[in-house]
Amino acid sequence: MNKEQGEVETYPTAMAISKRESISIFGGDLSQDFIGEVSFGAYAFRLIMLREPTPGELRLFEAVLVALADHGFTPTAIAARLTYLSAPDAIQGAIAAGLLGGGSRFLGVSEDTGRVLSEKLASLKRVPTDDAGWDEIASKMVADLKASKMTIPGLGHHLHKDGDPRVPKLFSIAKEVGTFGPHLALFQAMGRVAPAILGKNLPLNGAGCCGAALADLGIPQPLLRGVVLLARCAGLLGHIADEMRTPVAQSIFEHVESHAISSYPLD
Amino acid sequence: MNKEQGEVETYPTAMAISKRESISIFGGDLSQDFIGEVSFGAYAFRLIMLREPTPGELRLFEAVLVALADHGFTPTAIAARLTYLSAPDAIQGAIAAGLLGGGSRFLGVSEDTGRVLSEKLASLKRVPTDDAGWDEIASKMVADLKASKMTIPGLGHHLHKDGDPRVPKLFSIAKEVGTFGPHLALFQAMGRVAPAILGKNLPLNGAGCCGAALADLGIPQPLLRGVVLLARCAGLLGHIADEMRTPVAQSIFEHVESHAISSYPLD
Amino acid sequence: MNKEQGEVETYPTAMAISKRESISIFGGDLSQDFIGEVSFGAYAFRLIMLREPTPGELRLFEAVLVALADHGFTPTAIAARLTYLSAPDAIQGAIAAGLLGGGSRFLGVSEDTGRVLSEKLASLKRVPTDDAGWDEIASKMVADLKASKMTIPGLGHHLHKDGDPRVPKLFSIAKEVGTFGPHLALFQAMGRVAPAILGKNLPLNGAGCCGAALADLGIPQPLLRGVVLLARCAGLLGHIADEMRTPVAQSIFEHVESHAISSYPLD
Amino acid sequence: MNKEQGEVETYPTAMAISKRESISIFGGDLSQDFIGEVSFGAYAFRLIMLREPTPGELRLFEAVLVALADHGFTPTAIAARLTYLSAPDAIQGAIAAGLLGGGSRFLGVSEDTGRVLSEKLASLKRVPTDDAGWDEIASKMVADLKASKMTIPGLGHHLHKDGDPRVPKLFSIAKEVGTFGPHLALFQAMGRVAPAILGKNLPLNGAGCCGAALADLGIPQPLLRGVVLLARCAGLLGHIADEMRTPVAQSIFEHVESHAISSYPLD
Repeated sequence: MNKEQGEVETYPTAMAISKRESISIFGGDLSQDFIGEVSFGAYAFRLIMLREPTPGELRLFEAVLVALADHGFTPTAIAARLTYLSAPDAIQGAIAAGLLGGGSRFLGVSEDTGRVLSEKLASLKRVPTDDAGWDEIASKMVADLKASKMTIPGLGHHLHKDGDPRVPKLFSIAKEVGTFGPHLALFQAMGRVAPAILGKNLPLNGAGCCGAALADLGIPQPLLRGVVLLARCAGLLGHIADEMRTPVAQSIFEHVESHAISSYPLD
Repeated sequence: MNKEQGEVETYPTAMAISKRESISIFGGDLSQDFIGEVSFGAYAFRLIMLREPTPGELRLFEAVLVALADHGFTPTAIAARLTYLSAPDAIQGAIAAGLLGGGSRFLGVSEDTGRVLSEKLASLKRVPTDDAGWDEIASKMVADLKASKMTIPGLGHHLHKDGDPRVPKLFSIAKEVGTFGPHLALFQAMGRVAPAILGKNLPLNGAGCCGAALADLGIPQPLLRGVVLLARCAGLLGHIADEMRTPVAQSIFEHVESHAISSYPLD
Repeated sequence: MNKEQGEVETYPTAMAISKRESISIFGGDLSQDFIGEVSFGAYAFRLIMLREPTPGELRLFEAVLVALADHGFTPTAIAARLTYLSAPDAIQGAIAAGLLGGGSRFLGVSEDTGRVLSEKLASLKRVPTDDAGWDEIASKMVADLKASKMTIPGLGHHLHKDGDPRVPKLFSIAKEVGTFGPHLALFQAMGRVAPAILGKNLPLNGAGCCGAALADLGIPQPLLRGVVLLARCAGLLGHIADEMRTPVAQSIFEHVESHAISSYPLD
Repeated sequence: MNKEQGEVETYPTAMAISKRESISIFGGDLSQDFIGEVSFGAYAFRLIMLREPTPGELRLFEAVLVALADHGFTPTAIAARLTYLSAPDAIQGAIAAGLLGGGSRFLGVSEDTGRVLSEKLASLKRVPTDDAGWDEIASKMVADLKASKMTIPGLGHHLHKDGDPRVPKLFSIAKEVGTFGPHLALFQAMGRVAPAILGKNLPLNGAGCCGAALADLGIPQPLLRGVVLLARCAGLLGHIADEMRTPVAQSIFEHVESHAISSYPLD
């Protein structure tokens, strides 16, 4: 803000601007051009990217949102239910509490995978044209990550030890609609080469695959986690509806409270 | 929790249940039956309602989500941007901060409208069959609310003083797809009769209309606010993407800080 | 905001105002008059009330903060730990998630008790001068609340069924320091008369007692929940430190996930 | 969790454990040993550290909490006020929204400073015994950070360009009470040597000084941000009380909304 004295302060935005009689957005009119005319997924894509998705992009984007929306009793879903138990009068708090678990350990995997893939792709002089070419690059990438002792994002799942069932479906949709780009190609190659390099079976996981798919759609890397959170917001709403119908949070709380033992003093 | 000693504790849920090789939900398989097969809006509806929406219901549901997603520089959008400014490393915090504004004053209007309409409808012996019948009921409702000194939810907007442009479009879609039910009918009648009863022009607002539309879709009243929050989550993501491209939060902060004056001691 | 064209916008505040060389607050200088000169509890009291507490008021205020800081594995503490498990890189999210449980069911009891007591006291023509007088008023209040089918805040605790051990200590401190006012007197009377009126033993709980004590200190009713949240913030920090040393959140998550059963379709 | 079939699951904790008749903590009894017996600051220290602070440690710890509690209209305080404006019925949301700004840019400075200092100290073979010794180490540290193009935490403040007034007071208290340890010594030296190395006047800031002081008290580095958040929680409560008395959030919102201009399409 380098404003001259007296200069009028303004706040530029590409989001909606409301006037007395209209709400304008994306060079159009919210009511005439968007409400009832586009799907929520298409509108969400546009809010982030400021452009209309192609039908193929939209199909993959909505597939990713569906894939990420819910995974049952995750720590974030449990946190949302416990918060709803404590504060049923403020449902926004329960959803917010659930989203706050969107960090490095669970919901951050999509972002981390997208970043690792993007950095590798940015370093390439030319993009491979066949699987053998991708395998070579993926091998180098996995070996480097292994050497640096870093966790390799996108590999392994505590339950789906033989393969995450979401991964082949997402690959298949991306190929079908023509949005299978370099991030997904490198990610798929990573799945082929990792077991031999790491000496153990760590299959590709769904969160990582979603990160690769979103990166191929052009979603900027710092927003990948945001898309995951949008998807998860629907799942958390489902868990709260579920908690209203069939409460479990009180039982979880009582289970924990009644099994507490003292660890003080520490030895 | 009345469990016999030794009885196994279980947590029932209608959300996803994951096994080593599959993720089951709604009596089907996440990957085969939902990813890429249904829109995100349709899946969100199902997460909340545990049933598939009809095509008409889905069109109205997605229209409502689009209508509520963004309304420009609202207090919640500004709060999310300021939080992003402070903690750009934890985008989940910025989205959560924005959602936490989903309370009684702004994002709660949809819920409040839905509740007032539902309570009135529950008290009716029979549902009117024409506009005159609805107007009579709405007149009684508005007069009662006026007498009780309560704010009447769904009426008035600080900017759209001559009518919220989202309202006629939502009515039109609901009629077109055959989901214009008693909540929308009573809400529309409220708009017709309120000016004469209240002695001032307070047109129907979009948030209230969305509440009525969602109630007609069967969304339980305590979850109306949750649907608004899901919609708003997409808008907040848009604002954070906007803030990354064209930052304004630092300017807002500096404007406020530089115009602070002391109100201490209070007089 | 009714500003004439060109009028300068200002934001009045009784909180700190910073200049290049100083930070002013409460008519004094932050560094010279407050840092190292007053306890954190005394400063928190002043931030809320804009006045210095008397030594007696401060002793009771700090006693309440200590009493409310931690109660072990509450739903809010568990939610904070699960959020820390998911997002250990953003500790602010874990604390926020814990505080978001500060609603009507658990941490809201202090506020609800304070409100019920204040409303009753506001309706009195004169304040009783002995226990018999307080008992009479409390009897009427409890009978009215019972008749209205409302939950009576401040009574009963799921664990401390024979009496919450914090209550007599708080009464004793308030009497010792001379801040035992009408809210505590009415609250104490409520404990004496409730069992006979309700036909069951529902002793006074600590959260309600803290609400009464804070109300006697003059804390405005809408801020009572805020003081509880400040106290709880310290407890949540303790739980996160505990989780770092001796993790349990992963075990809680695994316990819940592994005991999930499907409740779909609902019958 | 490697439990044998049938083994009882337990959750160890050093926080409070409640029984029907008592609440135990730190090997003592909450009501008898802590409520009314220790200050809130002392209890918070114990919740984090599991040990009693010495009187000197407590004085510095409370001084840091007071120093960090409020800094006027920061982005986090504005976000809390805007959230309160939107959702006045859920004060926990406003406080949580404010705390969520506790990230890398603003409230994270204490943690970042503590980490940089701790890492440097951990690399030393022996600790200096005079200022010249500290200056030598600080010079190397600042030069290395400058060479790595990293922001140097603890240096500079957008308002207090000639020195943050909190810093000399905190140094003075730490020396007076005998807790001026290696973190503060290295931090102070950094302030002496930085201008010459960086070629510009970037004085030590208060947030960084608090991080150094807390590190000298033994607070683990990953919890430094948590202590800042506890302090800030009191300040946010003050801002919400202030907003109740003298509202400004609506004016801030209207200022921003009325100065919005479209940045779409981006050029």
